Amino acid sequence: MEPVVPRAEIEARVRSFQTGLRADGLDAALVVQTTDLYYLAGTAQNAHLIVPADGESLLLVRKSLERARAESPLERVEPLRSLRELPAALVAAGVERGRIGLELDVLPAARYLDYAGRLEGFELGDCSAALRRVRIRKSAWELERIRRAAHMLSRIGDWVAEVLVEGMTEIELAAEIERFLRREGHQGVLRMRAFNGEVFYGTIVAGPSAAVPGGTDTPIVGSGPNAAVAKGASTRPIGRGEPILVDLVASCDGYLADQTRTFSLGPVGDELREAYGLAHLILERVAAAAGPGVTGAALYDLSQELAAGRDGFMGAGEERVSFVGHGFGLEIDEPPFLARGYDEPLEEGMVFALEPKFVFPGRGGVGVENSYAVTADGVEKVTSAPEELVEL
Amino acid sequence: MEPVVPRAEIEARVRSFQTGLRADGLDAALVVQTTDLYYLAGTAQNAHLIVPADGESLLLVRKSLERARAESPLERVEPLRSLRELPAALVAAGVERGRIGLELDVLPAARYLDYAGRLEGFELGDCSAALRRVRIRKSAWELERIRRAAHMLSRIGDWVAEVLVEGMTEIELAAEIERFLRREGHQGVLRMRAFNGEVFYGTIVAGPSAAVPGGTDTPIVGSGPNAAVAKGASTRPIGRGEPILVDLVASCDGYLADQTRTFSLGPVGDELREAYGLAHLILERVAAAAGPGVTGAALYDLSQELAAGRDGFMGAGEERVSFVGHGFGLEIDEPPFLARGYDEPLEEGMVFALEPKFVFPGRGGVGVENSYAVTADGVEKVTSAPEELVEL
Repeated sequence: MEPVVPRAEIEARVRSFQTGLRADGLDAALVVQTTDLYYLAGTAQNAHLIVPADGESLLLVRKSLERARAESPLERVEPLRSLRELPAALVAAGVERGRIGLELDVLPAARYLDYAGRLEGFELGDCSAALRRVRIRKSAWELERIRRAAHMLSRIGDWVAEVLVEGMTEIELAAEIERFLRREGHQGVLRMRAFNGEVFYGTIVAGPSAAVPGGTDTPIVGSGPNAAVAKGASTRPIGRGEPILVDLVASCDGYLADQTRTFSLGPVGDELREAYGLAHLILERVAAAAGPGVTGAALYDLSQELAAGRDGFMGAGEERVSFVGHGFGLEIDEPPFLARGYDEPLEEGMVFALEPKFVFPGRGGVGVENSYAVTADGVEKVTSAPEELVEL
Repeated sequence: MEPVVPRAEIEARVRSFQTGLRADGLDAALVVQTTDLYYLAGTAQNAHLIVPADGESLLLVRKSLERARAESPLERVEPLRSLRELPAALVAAGVERGRIGLELDVLPAARYLDYAGRLEGFELGDCSAALRRVRIRKSAWELERIRRAAHMLSRIGDWVAEVLVEGMTEIELAAEIERFLRREGHQGVLRMRAFNGEVFYGTIVAGPSAAVPGGTDTPIVGSGPNAAVAKGASTRPIGRGEPILVDLVASCDGYLADQTRTFSLGPVGDELREAYGLAHLILERVAAAAGPGVTGAALYDLSQELAAGRDGFMGAGEERVSFVGHGFGLEIDEPPFLARGYDEPLEEGMVFALEPKFVFPGRGGVGVENSYAVTADGVEKVTSAPEELVEL
């Protein structure tokens, strides 16, 4: 019940968001999703946040008011007893008419239709683009959280060396690594914004599992435990010489960091080792080319050029994905994207994970991933675990 | 990539769902949420499932078609290259006009509005009520999965006794218990249907943490690691004599089971021990009263009567919740609800978790929870761990 996000952070975010609302022709936003509430109000309690395009925010809390007041630096934190109070609350926040932006990318349709009925006299719009534009640039305070999250992943090599034995299943290896992370204070819950998106610590897969096709837009999906959770670690035993991808998401105060390393028990063979070397070269070259003014598309194109049409780059055959990196923050799927056609230039304060990977059907996947922050003249690497392929 | 859900299951579910669609005046459903796809098609791949009110289902797969074909017992599993193909696909499924039901309770508003634009000439409706009505009654095959999930929780007493030491934090205890569960094959990802709903293994909280107010509609929320993930285990060290609530959700083939037990290091004191006894009495009496024809409201009222207005029952003060049990299945928040005003009678094949708990602000929470299946003449208890308060 302690405040985490400083008042100055919240004030700066709200101001930028208000600029975005005005640019998008919105007179106010009504924010209800957990992550967005934490971002704009400093609390993830069950609440509605009214942000007028001009003026002071009003946080209306259903549960728990006591906790929201303890956590949020906002001045106006009031109870919301019923949704019937919403129109009056908008007026109290200085919003008497006009266009109200909702988080249409995540708000369930039934709630949208319910709000449409309650907010008669208002037009409804979408504030999600304005939110994305604010959240894409991380403050110094946010970058520090991301660095701390990344630091949680720095000892992955020691952890894997300590627990990996031949014949243990992918899930058994995951159990041990997840325990290490949790003992470091990992928050457990990880957030993804996309509909149907789910992330559970990351993806630990070995050998042929890495090339199993799947529903997620990632180069490597994994079999998962079953058809219901059809991604990530499986109950397949890990054999000698199989590349083991350890793709993990760490956390600090809600902020994430993303890192992949590749391990094996015994040599993986020349072809996979050489592919790992190429993945690492792509990582270094693309990171070196990144910085303010460079577009995600240009970096994606560079990765393709460096991969030189090699089979299995970013997925096998039909399963290939059209990106090589993605932004993150409070959610794992934030902009910017290092992806085909992503023409927005990087700016200082943006962060991204870069994850060149190769997939060999029937044999496995190899690759490496670091998280980076865009600086004034390049990037800062925030993940720090050793980057070589570790053949134990 | 192996089928999990048998063909006969899928066929029976689809038939019942079609009956529900017709009852709700819908000519077809267009299903896109992961859990619902797994339920009706046996696969959680990225797909659209068209279920006509009469006729054969058509599964349209974006990614991965190969995996969806391997996992789904449906006859018609085809690629979907673009959403532009949807209107023609509906016609191919025999749906030429009328009212299409979407999962309005979970579908993001932006996608709803997008479908509304694409499906010109159709009316849009809500198929979520029909889905809930089918999913609420579990088949023999589903009950077997739920029993297996419950069995995963049977050794919790041994696990806690093995790892619990004074001064370890709630998250450190969680790290060990989560590892045990994962080693048993726990699927990791757990699903909750409500907007903003999240569940991570469950809730492990000790002493005063159990009485910290929070945003979730549960009697005990927990501090959580921070204001971003403001629920569940915290970094607070566990002291002697503090009640430790271990509320866990296990899994089998996507199906869940829910169980709570209370532990302590050293005696918890007479008042909390007596409250535990009352919670256990409520558990036994309410379970004994449950069965076909009994409403969730009647069981809730019985729990209130047995608690006799005792402070802290199902939450302290303002934080009190108006239920004592909830259904579950592929998601942790399914009907039926043992809640104020829930007037639907239980039927054979429904399952619920019953969780009488008491909260003592500043001191802790005690309680017990089992999962039950409704039989022809009562209930079957599916969770089997010993039920006494364990003071180690």
